[in-house]
Amino acid sequence: MGGLGTWIPVRGQFRVWGGPYVQERRGKAWSTLSTLPSFLPALCLGSALPPSQPGSLALSCSLHCLLGAVTPTHSLQVSPLPGAASKAPMEGEPTLRLRIFDLNCWAIRYLSKRRQERVRLIGDTLRREGFDLVLLQEVWSEQDYNDLKVKLAGCYPFSHYFRSGVIGSGLCVFSRFPILDTLLYQYSLNGYPYMLQHGDWFGGKSVGLVIMKISGIIFNVYITHLHAEYCRDKDAYLPHRLVQAWELAQFIRHTSKAADMVLLGGDLNMHPEDVGIRLLRGCTGLRDAFAEATHFEGCKNGCTLVPDNCFTDKSELLPFPLGIRIDYILYKAISSFTVKCEELKTTMGPAPGMDIPFSDHEAVMATLHIQRRGQPAGATLGTADLALADVVTEARMEVGVGLRAAQRQRYFSGRMAVLALLLLLLQAVAALGTLAGLGAEQPFPKLSFCLLAFLALGVLVLSTALHLFHTMEVKMLHGTEDQMWMALRALQEHPSEG
Amino acid sequence: MGGLGTWIPVRGQFRVWGGPYVQERRGKAWSTLSTLPSFLPALCLGSALPPSQPGSLALSCSLHCLLGAVTPTHSLQVSPLPGAASKAPMEGEPTLRLRIFDLNCWAIRYLSKRRQERVRLIGDTLRREGFDLVLLQEVWSEQDYNDLKVKLAGCYPFSHYFRSGVIGSGLCVFSRFPILDTLLYQYSLNGYPYMLQHGDWFGGKSVGLVIMKISGIIFNVYITHLHAEYCRDKDAYLPHRLVQAWELAQFIRHTSKAADMVLLGGDLNMHPEDVGIRLLRGCTGLRDAFAEATHFEGCKNGCTLVPDNCFTDKSELLPFPLGIRIDYILYKAISSFTVKCEELKTTMGPAPGMDIPFSDHEAVMATLHIQRRGQPAGATLGTADLALADVVTEARMEVGVGLRAAQRQRYFSGRMAVLALLLLLLQAVAALGTLAGLGAEQPFPKLSFCLLAFLALGVLVLSTALHLFHTMEVKMLHGTEDQMWMALRALQEHPSEG
Repeated sequence: MGGLGTWIPVRGQFRVWGGPYVQERRGKAWSTLSTLPSFLPALCLGSALPPSQPGSLALSCSLHCLLGAVTPTHSLQVSPLPGAASKAPMEGEPTLRLRIFDLNCWAIRYLSKRRQERVRLIGDTLRREGFDLVLLQEVWSEQDYNDLKVKLAGCYPFSHYFRSGVIGSGLCVFSRFPILDTLLYQYSLNGYPYMLQHGDWFGGKSVGLVIMKISGIIFNVYITHLHAEYCRDKDAYLPHRLVQAWELAQFIRHTSKAADMVLLGGDLNMHPEDVGIRLLRGCTGLRDAFAEATHFEGCKNGCTLVPDNCFTDKSELLPFPLGIRIDYILYKAISSFTVKCEELKTTMGPAPGMDIPFSDHEAVMATLHIQRRGQPAGATLGTADLALADVVTEARMEVGVGLRAAQRQRYFSGRMAVLALLLLLLQAVAALGTLAGLGAEQPFPKLSFCLLAFLALGVLVLSTALHLFHTMEVKMLHGTEDQMWMALRALQEHPSEG
Repeated sequence: MGGLGTWIPVRGQFRVWGGPYVQERRGKAWSTLSTLPSFLPALCLGSALPPSQPGSLALSCSLHCLLGAVTPTHSLQVSPLPGAASKAPMEGEPTLRLRIFDLNCWAIRYLSKRRQERVRLIGDTLRREGFDLVLLQEVWSEQDYNDLKVKLAGCYPFSHYFRSGVIGSGLCVFSRFPILDTLLYQYSLNGYPYMLQHGDWFGGKSVGLVIMKISGIIFNVYITHLHAEYCRDKDAYLPHRLVQAWELAQFIRHTSKAADMVLLGGDLNMHPEDVGIRLLRGCTGLRDAFAEATHFEGCKNGCTLVPDNCFTDKSELLPFPLGIRIDYILYKAISSFTVKCEELKTTMGPAPGMDIPFSDHEAVMATLHIQRRGQPAGATLGTADLALADVVTEARMEVGVGLRAAQRQRYFSGRMAVLALLLLLLQAVAALGTLAGLGAEQPFPKLSFCLLAFLALGVLVLSTALHLFHTMEVKMLHGTEDQMWMALRALQEHPSEG
């Protein structure tokens, strides 16, 4: 095994930090697939793959044997499709089965009800079920993450916690397979620091990227949590969420060029028909596991925020008696692969055998079947251009609304700062006049004067800070609007060339 | 030309907005190279390449003919090397010659001396010289960018301005070749908002990515400007600059996987031997145009901040009588290409025929020769592992120093906030006591009381804001330290397997 490395134990888990991926030549042979750091030798993933769990995941034959790979024999998440003869597009091709768990854990320290109990419950379930990949959001406390890491070390030896913002991103990933590399992208807009009651700003909402290689297939796994929607009728955060959806799509597009499979899991805080979801899916080509699943089991319409859950705010769900679907697993295969969602499940309120659910959200569990196809695919998305142009137009309009609101707020805060400054100057003149003996016949109202001065100073500081914040907001909204405009022009002038 | 598109005029310039790159199979044939948006058809760059300027750039033969490409015949920046018979590594292989201009323009509105005159001068020179690619930093005013865009529309029909922060990123790119796609990554740390006299925080320092395809070769061009160094002996911003260098390296690694050529230009605010530069180059494999240039012409040691420049602060350069080199053009070829820097030039103070220089920085101009090689290269960087481990250790130590400083500041600001809150509470108790008639025998000092209350409130607000800011700083420094630790472990355990 010339040039093959071994896995490195890093703080109780196995990790390899990667460098630039060596350009792959998939047209030649599978054996040349290798994700190499610029300064690291070729790494053989097979040599340290965690042992499969025969009880939970079927094991039959090694993908690499059939694909002519030179990686050594190892336990592999490979199984023939159940009933492959009728279902598999290419009979005899081996299938990689991947079980994914996604949950917004609602684990906010001091605020979330029965947090520690629920985190323990989540850990127990994950350990018992033995998924391949676990994507968790709202794990705001690093202690909770560390507790989970210790508990899950046996079955999910690889994990990553993404740090950002004041509180953290809340995002973490647990995996049965080695994590090769990670990257965090913090969204440029994420609510307002002064909206303390909503608090999204303090979370530093981001998208985390985790790169894995499972039996020779490069997975780019993205995990994210977008800004919450507090009032659907008058959603002041819609422009920010749209900027986030746009940046998420851009980030996925630019970082997934060497991937074979793209997975995105998380709480997108958007209903399936919302413009942000359509924008994200249209720009990236990601497919919705719920919409594509062969078998579905769970809450009606795949809802993940349901009135039956004892932790949800019932008044928020009044217009939606069945609940809403805002947690997603999206995916696509690039290059020589096809992917199918064979099964999608959601939890339904209380955890099995318990009186409480895992979280105020329902968990989403998908089983994906990934298969190599004979011919690499070309660009097949061109036909949806016109529909996407409509989506981008709609999104751009909403961003434009946000831009004008931000411009108004910038103007008002700027004007307020100028007024406060003028008041301070006037007071300074008055004080100097008094000191110089002018108007000495009248007593100087020291108390009111001081109160006013402090008030003016406070207003000046706050409105200047607001002005700066809204200036940044205007810049980012403007930049996104421009980018969308460029995309739109490109789409409109090439509607049918795909 | 089945499936070939045309270029789209966008706001007076030509732009195409791209989607995810279709996986390339370079092992097969050149003709399959295509950068495709997910919803756009294959685009033929050749069909709208700007006409070459025979006066400034040699034109001899089309690269695509020799490489068996199917792109149509077009004018191309292709020339045989001067004296190719002796210099070219593979005689007869055509060479793409690319002339790059990089300058920190020092164009801060109201602050920079003779700004408008210098921007005009830069525009005139760029128009006259006809570079292929122009990378400008510190173009803080969007008006200056727009003026340049109008002036340069003829010779650089493609351009992009990156928006971020309060003032902007200051980064812009002008190109003779179409820009396919762009992405901006804002660094997570960038100085302190309260350091008004330095002001880096307000610029929203970022790295901008511009993707181009020149005669079938995919170029990922990065432009950046890192945090300034105000005091080399006691550089409080070193940890922030190192986090930026690290994030820059990570961003380049993750987004350049589908590129054939990587170029980075900008003001890195680091001397060539500084740990940040070594970190960046070690992690990305980028090569320094100055160090590798066959011919050099310009300021001694390639300095770009020199005492001879009438705009530089002479006292800052006292320890460096020759000046310092902080502006760079770095590059590397991936996949089947080799790149050589044939010539590097810097300006030397006053612009030709003028009494003033372009900026307080000298411009860097590189001529790169890119050639296809017979065999794709493997990973050749493994041997430098040990040296890189030392660099990462050094960088991590500096980040650790910054982390402890940030933790101290977070602690002090937090304690100050708590004290201010206690004072306010005490005052509230005293006021309530007075209202209730206790201690009524003594006159209540209203003025001092109000002054004190406002002071406490001001301290509370400011120290809370500081506490939040330093909490974020701690999070990002901690995250970077962790990432570096992972990288280090991987390097130390694989020192010689390359």
